[in-house]
Amino acid sequence: MPKIVRFHEVGDTAVLKLEDLSLTEPGSEEVRLRVEAIGLNRAEIMFRRGQYLETPEFPSRLGYEAAGIVEAVGSNVSGVQIGDRVSTIPSFSIGKYGVYGESAIVPAYAVASYPDQLSAIEGAAIWMQYLTAFGALIEYGHLGPRDAVLITAASSSVGLAAIQITKASGALAIATTRGADKKSFLLEAGADHVIITDEEPMVERVMAITSGNGARLVFDPIAGSLLEQLAHATAHGGMIFEYGALSPSPTSFPLFAALAKGLTVRGYTLFEIVKDPDKLSRGKRYIHDGLQSGALRPIIDRTFSLEAIIEAHEYMESNVQKGKIVVTV
Amino acid sequence: MPKIVRFHEVGDTAVLKLEDLSLTEPGSEEVRLRVEAIGLNRAEIMFRRGQYLETPEFPSRLGYEAAGIVEAVGSNVSGVQIGDRVSTIPSFSIGKYGVYGESAIVPAYAVASYPDQLSAIEGAAIWMQYLTAFGALIEYGHLGPRDAVLITAASSSVGLAAIQITKASGALAIATTRGADKKSFLLEAGADHVIITDEEPMVERVMAITSGNGARLVFDPIAGSLLEQLAHATAHGGMIFEYGALSPSPTSFPLFAALAKGLTVRGYTLFEIVKDPDKLSRGKRYIHDGLQSGALRPIIDRTFSLEAIIEAHEYMESNVQKGKIVVTV
Repeated sequence: MPKIVRFHEVGDTAVLKLEDLSLTEPGSEEVRLRVEAIGLNRAEIMFRRGQYLETPEFPSRLGYEAAGIVEAVGSNVSGVQIGDRVSTIPSFSIGKYGVYGESAIVPAYAVASYPDQLSAIEGAAIWMQYLTAFGALIEYGHLGPRDAVLITAASSSVGLAAIQITKASGALAIATTRGADKKSFLLEAGADHVIITDEEPMVERVMAITSGNGARLVFDPIAGSLLEQLAHATAHGGMIFEYGALSPSPTSFPLFAALAKGLTVRGYTLFEIVKDPDKLSRGKRYIHDGLQSGALRPIIDRTFSLEAIIEAHEYMESNVQKGKIVVTV
Repeated sequence: MPKIVRFHEVGDTAVLKLEDLSLTEPGSEEVRLRVEAIGLNRAEIMFRRGQYLETPEFPSRLGYEAAGIVEAVGSNVSGVQIGDRVSTIPSFSIGKYGVYGESAIVPAYAVASYPDQLSAIEGAAIWMQYLTAFGALIEYGHLGPRDAVLITAASSSVGLAAIQITKASGALAIATTRGADKKSFLLEAGADHVIITDEEPMVERVMAITSGNGARLVFDPIAGSLLEQLAHATAHGGMIFEYGALSPSPTSFPLFAALAKGLTVRGYTLFEIVKDPDKLSRGKRYIHDGLQSGALRPIIDRTFSLEAIIEAHEYMESNVQKGKIVVTV
């Protein structure tokens, strides 16, 4: 019987339980994976706490990103075969299809192959981070080589993906992080400039770096009181993508800066991309090409065993990680 | 000596003075108009009070929109001739070039002809209102016949222009106004639905009208606490244009609605259009065509004489007007 992570109430990491459940067969449009690696996402912490866009129904699974081998396919599935090496694109109910476990059933549309030279650990660290950054910067932001991009919380896996995509476009990547401890890491990861927000005035630094113009694109998961500052660091006609709600403080809209500079503030999640076949197709091709060429390369912070799922979540909550946390199965 | 309106300190309507000033000659890139009519704009109240994007230098002129006859042209001016019947496009310093008066010098690029069948009073009520609504709804919003547009403060001249442009595109115009007194006027002006915000729950009404989808475009000069409600009345993937700051209350960014629905909130002013030659050219053509066909027709609320400029500003501040207030000269 495969071990599956479930939880029966919202709460802190202790609610996560590793349970022996019987193996089930995929529905007609589904496939079953033998899971090799699981990429962790902050969405799963929010979901576990009952603070996510989707509310758990108990007992609930969780988890968006797994890499594994297809071991069963539903009767209506085409294009996916037993034995395929795939990873999952987060485009399904995290509670119903959650992939934390030795076995996972997911919709067939949500699996995609990944380049052969990547390990399963890397394969579990692709779609959430790169598709999220792709959608904002490339699909909506039309990133070009003359742009400056301000990337906050830059040492998260999505932040690092945004740095790589910015550099792949020939644009300028300005990364922010709270403490000085992650500065050299971010420079090595490709950032052109790193602003330590606990020590440096962010707006002044961005303005100095961009010769007073500001960043044309801003990619931010924090919101709260930061948004007003971000608006001051944004160029005329620029766009601010808000893709998360990490700040506990209320978010004010920077009305006067927005009027004076014609700013766009856009709420954005990956789901806009994965629910649109054309956008998803463009994103998959972009990411495949970038992984093949080496322009995109997943950065893995640390791995945990499935038995250590609680420690893995605690580690993710500690915010010390630099890159993706992956559970190996 | 022409009579010119100036003010020597910020304040209430009493600061406006009608002064006899000597006639001056236009600079090399300027033209001088014999003013026939002046369209009043809320921007001029804000500027008079010292609350506008531009700060007055005293003594300061004011005024963006005049219709008149060209009576002198600068040495480098081409395309504008003495005797031309033109009106001014607000694309200049309101303090330096303010058009309130019998005579006005403005940059040559800021004058445009208007259709012969329009009176000078109507000619002074074109560019601010139609270009503002055009830029948001057509240029950026890509308004189409299947769209629903939510237009707040709809009985202002810009609100009425937005209703006309919405109907010209075959889309659905949902207008809001505070009191029931303007409802029949707004229906006659072309609104498909009018929501009386003092009496009716706005979000529920918009949702009922749009079969639960919400409005794809929202065009709002109020902001403040209204923005959160507007987000709830906006469709997935919709855009909210904030083109003013009428509300005295702080504006919160509707983060969770924006994330859940992929909403765009965009600060917007007419200056984005008038400073971009391509956009301005498209806007002028669109408005000329609409005025010629009758799809667009300026709605004049009331006229005042130049001597009554203080009463005209007081009337604008009363918010009882429905459409444009024009001063005749």
